[in-house]
Amino acid sequence: MTNEPERLRALRFDEEARALIMLDQTLLPGETRFIRLTKPEEVYEAISRLRVRGAPAIGIAAAYGGYLGIADSSAPDYRALRRELAELRDYLGSARPTAVNLTWALDRIVRRLDAEKDAPVERMKRAVKEEADAIREEDERVCRAIGEHALALLRPGWGLLTHCNSGAIATAGYGTALAPIYLGGERGYDFKVFADETRPLLQGIRLTAWELGRAGIDVTVICDSAASLVMSQGKVQAVLVGCDRVAANGDAANKIGTSGLAILARHYGIPFYVHAPLSTIDLWCRSGREIVIEERSPEELTERWYERRMAPEGCKAFNPAFDVTDNALISAIITEEGVVRPPYEGRLTGVSDPPPSERKEPEE
Amino acid sequence: MTNEPERLRALRFDEEARALIMLDQTLLPGETRFIRLTKPEEVYEAISRLRVRGAPAIGIAAAYGGYLGIADSSAPDYRALRRELAELRDYLGSARPTAVNLTWALDRIVRRLDAEKDAPVERMKRAVKEEADAIREEDERVCRAIGEHALALLRPGWGLLTHCNSGAIATAGYGTALAPIYLGGERGYDFKVFADETRPLLQGIRLTAWELGRAGIDVTVICDSAASLVMSQGKVQAVLVGCDRVAANGDAANKIGTSGLAILARHYGIPFYVHAPLSTIDLWCRSGREIVIEERSPEELTERWYERRMAPEGCKAFNPAFDVTDNALISAIITEEGVVRPPYEGRLTGVSDPPPSERKEPEE
Repeated sequence: MTNEPERLRALRFDEEARALIMLDQTLLPGETRFIRLTKPEEVYEAISRLRVRGAPAIGIAAAYGGYLGIADSSAPDYRALRRELAELRDYLGSARPTAVNLTWALDRIVRRLDAEKDAPVERMKRAVKEEADAIREEDERVCRAIGEHALALLRPGWGLLTHCNSGAIATAGYGTALAPIYLGGERGYDFKVFADETRPLLQGIRLTAWELGRAGIDVTVICDSAASLVMSQGKVQAVLVGCDRVAANGDAANKIGTSGLAILARHYGIPFYVHAPLSTIDLWCRSGREIVIEERSPEELTERWYERRMAPEGCKAFNPAFDVTDNALISAIITEEGVVRPPYEGRLTGVSDPPPSERKEPEE
Repeated sequence: MTNEPERLRALRFDEEARALIMLDQTLLPGETRFIRLTKPEEVYEAISRLRVRGAPAIGIAAAYGGYLGIADSSAPDYRALRRELAELRDYLGSARPTAVNLTWALDRIVRRLDAEKDAPVERMKRAVKEEADAIREEDERVCRAIGEHALALLRPGWGLLTHCNSGAIATAGYGTALAPIYLGGERGYDFKVFADETRPLLQGIRLTAWELGRAGIDVTVICDSAASLVMSQGKVQAVLVGCDRVAANGDAANKIGTSGLAILARHYGIPFYVHAPLSTIDLWCRSGREIVIEERSPEELTERWYERRMAPEGCKAFNPAFDVTDNALISAIITEEGVVRPPYEGRLTGVSDPPPSERKEPEE
């Protein structure tokens, strides 16, 4: 048991080996194995197979993936290197469609390259690596700030319900929705956490229960469908979730099931908080209707994790990975800058990205 | 493929072998194996381990279990046989606490014995067997009647969401919530059924998808937590569920997650129908607050069905098997006698049981 969850480094970069060292989250909780990734293809595979998951963490991984793709490049000049990095951005950015900070992080390394366009090629490569480092370091500060703002909304002894995993291993450290839980744990808040198991990939029971338990936090796993009962029994005083993308109107895409929890929370009069680094707020996306929902393999539902196939042969399965929570159901959105209450329209600060149209290579 | 789901006989009694022949539902969908039960202890085990499940089916099984317990009895007279059967009623009735028609069916065989108190002992035993047969035969008629009443509420082409398994194998045939789906299938209604997988024991993906698919009904499995998304996309025009016990005010206990679905259905403006044989309506239970919710083993959540343990060691799990849906969220309760709309208080017809106080042996 430890109260230092920041020691959980799901992602770090080994300078000497020029490798991204990644906790393989598909093996948790049974095995804590770190894998070494040296090629962008390996990073793509790790993101799409959920070895690394969580919006902030996949942004960090993708940024390092971009660097790994150009580190040995023989591109002679800025234009050639820029073309390579832009291709890597499109490639890595397609590993998963819903999280906006995947493309946000990749855009950042491209812009950093642009800023160094007059430097020698090796210096440009170095700058891309430094930008990936900066994204990782900032994320840890961002998570801690989110935790502080969110903790101010909670009271000692509260029961808290969370879904999926928005924890230390989904970020550079601390997590987003779990950040106030860790900070509260350090300060004796004595929270009782309920973790939805989160079908189909069980991030709640495999990851959230693992990392909170490791930090000495009181955590109880429930079936996703038990949330209504637990709320009805008065055991939950707030619902805390992360998000993969927030639209300008406050609609928030997050793990499938989140929108249902928000509806239940509203029914039972329980506040529902979305924890969102600014890098997940996409001001160019006007509402949740514009957010692409990733649909994943039916086998995640019918076969994965089971001793034997659980569905009859030929059974159809629909397996959306995310859903969108209507802004009207969100009590507050908590970013590193503070707590935003509804109405959200025009009041959310997003990342200072250029609009999508300007994300294209200016020279082509 | 067949449109004759009544051929699915999850329970039948083999007269010659004096054995209850039961489809072992824990092995579905991979294996269709029938087991032979000749002792009440085996029936108890089968009910508590969910080899047979579904409120009507466990009532039928328990009634035969009572008969199996007295069939070879050497009791010399009514008093002695009555004492044995009363003990069997208490024993078998404790196999699962939530479903009311478990005790309802057991009470019926005891009352039938009482009605034959002046007959020879062998005739009394025979009467108990006949009562179990009658319960089974009635259930099939009841399910068909529920199906007809419920189908009148549905329109061809509708998307229907169901939870757990309230199907042919949960009853003597046809099912409760699935009865209108079968009848609609026979009449070309072309329903699109969404079946929640129903954690932790996966009755939806294992059983509902299996029996509907077998009958040629269009069925798609979803994670329990995807119900909100599917509803938000306009794919669901009605939610159909069974129930384990309905209180006099209309509060309905059913598989964990049902109350959450009712809240979602209300949010999205979708009708929510509870299918309840009169034998599940407990007029002596005033509201859902009086219904005992069975809490099952945490291992069902943390270990069962998985290739490897999914929860970290020492992880706490809360595993309620049922929840109670508030009557205010139920659009209609459909029994074999017809469709009851709210308010339910004083308008539900229950089984004509004596009150609990009179269920005790009158002579003791």
